[in-house]
Amino acid sequence: MEKEKSSAPTVFIIFGASGDLTWRKLVPALYNLFLSEWLPEKFDIIGLSFDEMKDEAFRDHLRDGVNQFSRRGKVKDDDWRKFAECLHYSKADLGDAKIYKDLAKTLAAREKKWGAEANRIFYLALPPSMVEPVARNLGIARLNEKRQRARIVVEKPFGHDLTSARDLNRILIDIFEERQIFRIDHYLGKETVQNILAFRFGNALFEPVWNRQFIDHVQITVAEEVGIGHRGAYYDKAGALRDMIQNHLLQVLCLIAMEAPVSFDDNEIRNKKVDVLHAIRPIPPEQVQQFAVRGQYGAGKINGKIVKGYHDEEDVADNSFTETFVATKFYVDNWRWQGVPFFLRTGKRLPAKISEILIQFKPVPHQTFPASATLDLRPNRLLIAIQPEEGILLRFQVKKPGPVMHLSPVMMQFYYREAFNVAPPEAYETLLLDITKGDATLFLRRDQTEAAWSVIAPILDVWNAVKSADFPNYQAGTWGPEGADTLIAQDGISWIAPTPLQCQGDTAVCSITTEPRL
Amino acid sequence: MEKEKSSAPTVFIIFGASGDLTWRKLVPALYNLFLSEWLPEKFDIIGLSFDEMKDEAFRDHLRDGVNQFSRRGKVKDDDWRKFAECLHYSKADLGDAKIYKDLAKTLAAREKKWGAEANRIFYLALPPSMVEPVARNLGIARLNEKRQRARIVVEKPFGHDLTSARDLNRILIDIFEERQIFRIDHYLGKETVQNILAFRFGNALFEPVWNRQFIDHVQITVAEEVGIGHRGAYYDKAGALRDMIQNHLLQVLCLIAMEAPVSFDDNEIRNKKVDVLHAIRPIPPEQVQQFAVRGQYGAGKINGKIVKGYHDEEDVADNSFTETFVATKFYVDNWRWQGVPFFLRTGKRLPAKISEILIQFKPVPHQTFPASATLDLRPNRLLIAIQPEEGILLRFQVKKPGPVMHLSPVMMQFYYREAFNVAPPEAYETLLLDITKGDATLFLRRDQTEAAWSVIAPILDVWNAVKSADFPNYQAGTWGPEGADTLIAQDGISWIAPTPLQCQGDTAVCSITTEPRL
Repeated sequence: MEKEKSSAPTVFIIFGASGDLTWRKLVPALYNLFLSEWLPEKFDIIGLSFDEMKDEAFRDHLRDGVNQFSRRGKVKDDDWRKFAECLHYSKADLGDAKIYKDLAKTLAAREKKWGAEANRIFYLALPPSMVEPVARNLGIARLNEKRQRARIVVEKPFGHDLTSARDLNRILIDIFEERQIFRIDHYLGKETVQNILAFRFGNALFEPVWNRQFIDHVQITVAEEVGIGHRGAYYDKAGALRDMIQNHLLQVLCLIAMEAPVSFDDNEIRNKKVDVLHAIRPIPPEQVQQFAVRGQYGAGKINGKIVKGYHDEEDVADNSFTETFVATKFYVDNWRWQGVPFFLRTGKRLPAKISEILIQFKPVPHQTFPASATLDLRPNRLLIAIQPEEGILLRFQVKKPGPVMHLSPVMMQFYYREAFNVAPPEAYETLLLDITKGDATLFLRRDQTEAAWSVIAPILDVWNAVKSADFPNYQAGTWGPEGADTLIAQDGISWIAPTPLQCQGDTAVCSITTEPRL
Repeated sequence: MEKEKSSAPTVFIIFGASGDLTWRKLVPALYNLFLSEWLPEKFDIIGLSFDEMKDEAFRDHLRDGVNQFSRRGKVKDDDWRKFAECLHYSKADLGDAKIYKDLAKTLAAREKKWGAEANRIFYLALPPSMVEPVARNLGIARLNEKRQRARIVVEKPFGHDLTSARDLNRILIDIFEERQIFRIDHYLGKETVQNILAFRFGNALFEPVWNRQFIDHVQITVAEEVGIGHRGAYYDKAGALRDMIQNHLLQVLCLIAMEAPVSFDDNEIRNKKVDVLHAIRPIPPEQVQQFAVRGQYGAGKINGKIVKGYHDEEDVADNSFTETFVATKFYVDNWRWQGVPFFLRTGKRLPAKISEILIQFKPVPHQTFPASATLDLRPNRLLIAIQPEEGILLRFQVKKPGPVMHLSPVMMQFYYREAFNVAPPEAYETLLLDITKGDATLFLRRDQTEAAWSVIAPILDVWNAVKSADFPNYQAGTWGPEGADTLIAQDGISWIAPTPLQCQGDTAVCSITTEPRL
């Protein structure tokens, strides 16, 4: 268990502690880690923000957040009292160098009290524009030193394009060493996303067929039912390609396509993942149209409720050309994947919140059975369901019961919830625990972020130069623009209409809610 | 559908029509085929036997059998009336050549009435001693002619050892052509047994790992809870090796180990199966002890009920050395299976009625994960459950939900009953339909029966020569003698304790009834 938990005294400093991320995600996650005894015994949280607030008010605000957002529901008084002791707040102008000197003193005092050096985790729960000034001030106050103990955590977006990402990385690397920098893509903290590694490399059965010889193509879908909510100001400048493909979907692609790592060492895993990004075939500008399709939702209906179009959302420009839907096709040009298309799609205001990965295998190489037996024959398919339920389903053929040989596709099914019947930890719990341990496996290294930007750069450039003429081109509540179907149809394939899986909480019996996607 | 059903007029002649097989199996199966409209329109059943009986009594007797043994339960009057019209009975001394001449006349009259030539299926529902005289008489009456239309069906046992099997085959081949002879091993008519072919050759996913590089070993278990009932006179001369291993278990082994057939042609399938039997490594007499273990049950308890030992069963010799349990190990000496042991076991008075095939895969070739993550790591395992429930289960590793990486084995599950929610046909329905079509895929060809006898011949010889000193060596209600565990332990393996699966009829929700065998 040595490496599973850090026993080192730790101070967790949150810049932007009065914001949404702290309230909804960070503190509920830290609280759950505390309850599960994953946190070091000597542990303190210091919140810094522009707002005027007493410790007591800060604690009450956070308790309210935990009550609303923790997977464990409402806090118990006793537990909260113990946890709240480690919560502290200071009003601070983060642009002011002085507060970093004060922080240094506070940290020194804490260490003196504890009689031990402490890990210092500087968590930047801040808008992108604040990353540079805070990082520089940390450097000036020499809080970047003690390289083994000081860590800086940065949230996405990591830049707005390849150039700005490089700039941002250069600044960070100027002050911190790469191993001190934890770039978060919270998607990588999700159980099923992590489980891809377990599934691929904890089993001898799948890896032999995990290549171009046996796999026909891969589909990765991250569909959202929600629109952009109050994020218009950010989203309208970003769009789905930057917001989703550049990070989440490309990272999932890496996990599916990576070579077997030698060990579970964080740099080894990230080496293998970045190899995939480097192997993705660059899209020539004149071919962007064949490899990527964009969409923007108009008004429509979701679950019987009328919702407005993207143009009418808060903080969105009337003539906005920002895409809310993207479908892309990538090839991974290496020995394993040559010729196997990877289709990615993501969008807002789609019919359901569904994330899944579909591995479509090739047909049997030789048809043994007579034509009459194989009218229903379908190639094998592996479905890794991430949301709303986590599970792994395998489509295969069996003999249909009856006195003659007819093959029929069926599903072999595994559901996390049935097997374990516990709510998995939130992504942020996993990620924050890893940060306390200094394990960067699930975080993005500099070269990963830049390689991902390089992959989408040609699409960004072309879309920037040539505005879409047909926006809005899909109704809210549909599966995106027609172009997405055309994109995949070029290869004689169609998107698999995802069907939500559902589990009934108590009995933990799971099933496909509508006709199985066979 | 051309090949799925025979439209040729057919007369089904049962020799031994007053016996148990006709009553319990043949006529219930024919009746179900009739209900499902699988039988030709012009169809007649003629029963022959020593007993004196009118048509009406014969029909009533058979109706009673269908009511008791049909998977569809009690017959409906209307259906039965239509079916019963084709049931006819004649008292006959089967040793008397004259009755075959009469039969020939009856058949000719039937054909005249129908205005068409009819297929003639001579079904020998008779003890082994009667096979030769009936076959010879059929020959004398020239009922073996019309080679395309006349078929003879023979039930096991096909001989008592290699020599007698050869003799029997020689007699049959003397009178009928091989393609007219249908040797029944009813096990091959079972849905899940047939499904092995569908599973292996209808899916592209498994065949690439179906070999010595990925499979560690195979276990085939056919466990019976029952004792020998009233079959003592037969069983005490046969024993489990002849009664089960020589036919059922070796046939299952062939389906698991065979190469991919070019087509579903009956001779092609049987060629590929017999190749396996020919490849089984002959066991030298001095090594029989390392490759085969025998057992005989003593008194014990099953389901809380005391049952007597084999010695005390009806029609069993007091000092009987007949085995009621066998465990064997075979190697298939070919390119695909070199070095992979196949363990077979079968026995009476075991704790449960369970048939299953277990494919144990090798461990992952390289351990990527840290030791702390893999305390629970188990190799992949594919379970093909045949009885009491039919299903396919795959053991694989997933990430255990939690903030650190721990692998945990789980089961991906498929149950026939959940997927189709229909009672599969009885083995005899499938087999009798195939006989009407002249499709011999599921029947044993001469060379198959003889090759199977060759495989077990060395064990038979040694066991015959050296009587077991320790019989009875297992208690009824246990998993057989200690020697069976020792046999498999030589390879560092143990038998997988089978756990019955159960499905709840109406809801068709299936589950493993006790702790999953992970």
